[in-house]
Amino acid sequence: MAVLPLLRDEEASADALAVFKDIREKRGTDYVNNFWRALAHDPDELKAVWDRLQTVMAPGALDPLIKELIYIAVSATNGCGYCVHSHTASAKAKGLTPQMHAELLQVIAMASRTNALAVALGVPVDERFEAEPPRQGD
Amino acid sequence: MAVLPLLRDEEASADALAVFKDIREKRGTDYVNNFWRALAHDPDELKAVWDRLQTVMAPGALDPLIKELIYIAVSATNGCGYCVHSHTASAKAKGLTPQMHAELLQVIAMASRTNALAVALGVPVDERFEAEPPRQGD
Amino acid sequence: MAVLPLLRDEEASADALAVFKDIREKRGTDYVNNFWRALAHDPDELKAVWDRLQTVMAPGALDPLIKELIYIAVSATNGCGYCVHSHTASAKAKGLTPQMHAELLQVIAMASRTNALAVALGVPVDERFEAEPPRQGD
Amino acid sequence: MAVLPLLRDEEASADALAVFKDIREKRGTDYVNNFWRALAHDPDELKAVWDRLQTVMAPGALDPLIKELIYIAVSATNGCGYCVHSHTASAKAKGLTPQMHAELLQVIAMASRTNALAVALGVPVDERFEAEPPRQGD
Amino acid sequence: MAVLPLLRDEEASADALAVFKDIREKRGTDYVNNFWRALAHDPDELKAVWDRLQTVMAPGALDPLIKELIYIAVSATNGCGYCVHSHTASAKAKGLTPQMHAELLQVIAMASRTNALAVALGVPVDERFEAEPPRQGD
Amino acid sequence: MAVLPLLRDEEASADALAVFKDIREKRGTDYVNNFWRALAHDPDELKAVWDRLQTVMAPGALDPLIKELIYIAVSATNGCGYCVHSHTASAKAKGLTPQMHAELLQVIAMASRTNALAVALGVPVDERFEAEPPRQGD
Repeated sequence: MAVLPLLRDEEASADALAVFKDIREKRGTDYVNNFWRALAHDPDELKAVWDRLQTVMAPGALDPLIKELIYIAVSATNGCGYCVHSHTASAKAKGLTPQMHAELLQVIAMASRTNALAVALGVPVDERFEAEPPRQGD
Repeated sequence: MAVLPLLRDEEASADALAVFKDIREKRGTDYVNNFWRALAHDPDELKAVWDRLQTVMAPGALDPLIKELIYIAVSATNGCGYCVHSHTASAKAKGLTPQMHAELLQVIAMASRTNALAVALGVPVDERFEAEPPRQGD
Repeated sequence: MAVLPLLRDEEASADALAVFKDIREKRGTDYVNNFWRALAHDPDELKAVWDRLQTVMAPGALDPLIKELIYIAVSATNGCGYCVHSHTASAKAKGLTPQMHAELLQVIAMASRTNALAVALGVPVDERFEAEPPRQGD
Repeated sequence: MAVLPLLRDEEASADALAVFKDIREKRGTDYVNNFWRALAHDPDELKAVWDRLQTVMAPGALDPLIKELIYIAVSATNGCGYCVHSHTASAKAKGLTPQMHAELLQVIAMASRTNALAVALGVPVDERFEAEPPRQGD
Repeated sequence: MAVLPLLRDEEASADALAVFKDIREKRGTDYVNNFWRALAHDPDELKAVWDRLQTVMAPGALDPLIKELIYIAVSATNGCGYCVHSHTASAKAKGLTPQMHAELLQVIAMASRTNALAVALGVPVDERFEAEPPRQGD
Repeated sequence: MAVLPLLRDEEASADALAVFKDIREKRGTDYVNNFWRALAHDPDELKAVWDRLQTVMAPGALDPLIKELIYIAVSATNGCGYCVHSHTASAKAKGLTPQMHAELLQVIAMASRTNALAVALGVPVDERFEAEPPRQGD
């Protein structure tokens, strides 16, 4: 199931191939997964997403594995099956244990449950949860 | 803006008040936030959510602060403004720094971007991201 | 907070006013709620939505009150605060009791919780839940 | 397509098997569907979801069949294909007729249509749809 | 994967067949796609959707191809794989070029990214983006 | 309502101010809207989003106004009230007429309606809507 064919190396443009090469080198594998092969129809977006992805997912105040957990949480909530699969695989490669995975799913389930209740009840935000009121720039 | 009035202590049932008491003790504050006051119309659900919440958000293989980050990610993706506000406040109380918050938002934004692309492209899941095929129970 | 001004009677077109008149008569109240006043900028869509709404929400195999519960469930899941508020009001006018409302919210919360788990686990559909496989029309 | 293998009976832990046993007894069938076999990797969440599910879906002010309709509405809106399939099957087992199903889908479609309009128009909630304004607990 | 069998011509009711006939004539093809064959279980909704679809997607202030792009954007955001596939096919039939498709996906990705940030930050609407405040009808 | 205070010019970092300066120059107005003032807490994301936004929304195979319509469609579907408001304002500045706006909303409503039906019916993708099957890169 795909809207556009997944581009094989010999079908990809030079710009797309350059990104594929970078993916292979940075990940230390010859395998380029379907997302990139579909996105290769637009080398500009391919490069923009791949470049930003590396910056965003790099170690920082948050550990790369923690970032994968957040990624999975967003993907599950958005109903993106592909993304859930690919980032669960990434998380496992970065050290996700079954116990961590179980707790991740528990939190996702819990948040989905209370999100639904808060919206269905139309709960107003408590004043103390707000930053100070909007102020006009000078 | 609320669908049901937020129940004051003197309007809540004994069962709801017992949960309010537990919230106050566990959190070490007299303040009971709006979500619980709205949910107090159904003391059974109130207790079920509060009890499960404590289990799920307790320290485990994942740190309580990390669990709050995942909670915020789900809430933002679900568009639950209340939940984003209340759990960002919780995360701050558990040690969220501005740098961690910034990286959290970066990952949420990155995942939302690639989720949209993967769905719009109808990317099929790579075989290697699948667990072994479904098997029938005996 | 509105993208377009809510049209007062004296600002609405003749076509929009005809729909307002029908709303007032069918509902037995002079009050026309904000949704219709915002939609009045497009009298064609206003009429199409209002006409279909009456057909869809009329008594049938499902009771009108049950239809309102389903409406609220969709609206809460879509994060439409306006719709949650207006249809909870409609449901109350059609006999929603606090106990029914509590059970409605419980089911919404339960479904949201298991939806998130099923997606995050990528659970494949059981063969027995499928209708027979797609067949080509002749 | 699954993120984790669906556990066969002989692969499940004793705690998970105890829930499987309960599912079989309560449902009067030997068949345990994929959702539970995927969730069996976390026996604690498996039990928590199964236990709460029974409470929430039991007869009350709302009929069990009506609760299934609400479940389907949430699942369709969340885009959970698995859940739509499994709960449509459950609803049929509880007496869903083709006419009721048709009306359910009509309401889901209608609500999705007006939800989108209300959000795209930014319609403010009518004062009369609000519960009284938030009040501080004492 | 389907909840209801896709109806073949010989299984469809006379009312459904009349819509199939109209689809075939208007589209100049004998092929009736799966969506209509699934919806044929409810000839009333089938006709209502088909009729409104033609009105809405007809040339107007917006070009039919532009309308398809908007349709794809909504479908991708709702996570409706079927709709993304069918309307990308429709858009191609109406002249969608690879470059337009690439730009469409870029905008969808960009909007998803900033939507997530705006919600996660709880950004209040700027006064200048509001229509004048709600006014009561007379 | 905001999770973080909106930064005034005198509170923003030099890096954030440089982006504000660019926004002012490119837009020819001194006004910097709330989204950028909230995002200014993370000058790196602020710059990344602003830079990419200009590239993506620039004239190309699609007209800038058409891109705004797609942006609004995604934002409405994601339930991002802020984004609906700000991009409807942008679209008006780029020539959106009331008639175009009405048609945009009609398409958003139509797509939301059929998306919900397609998911609730679990309609399988027609073979002819698929690109050729996934192929392995060499």
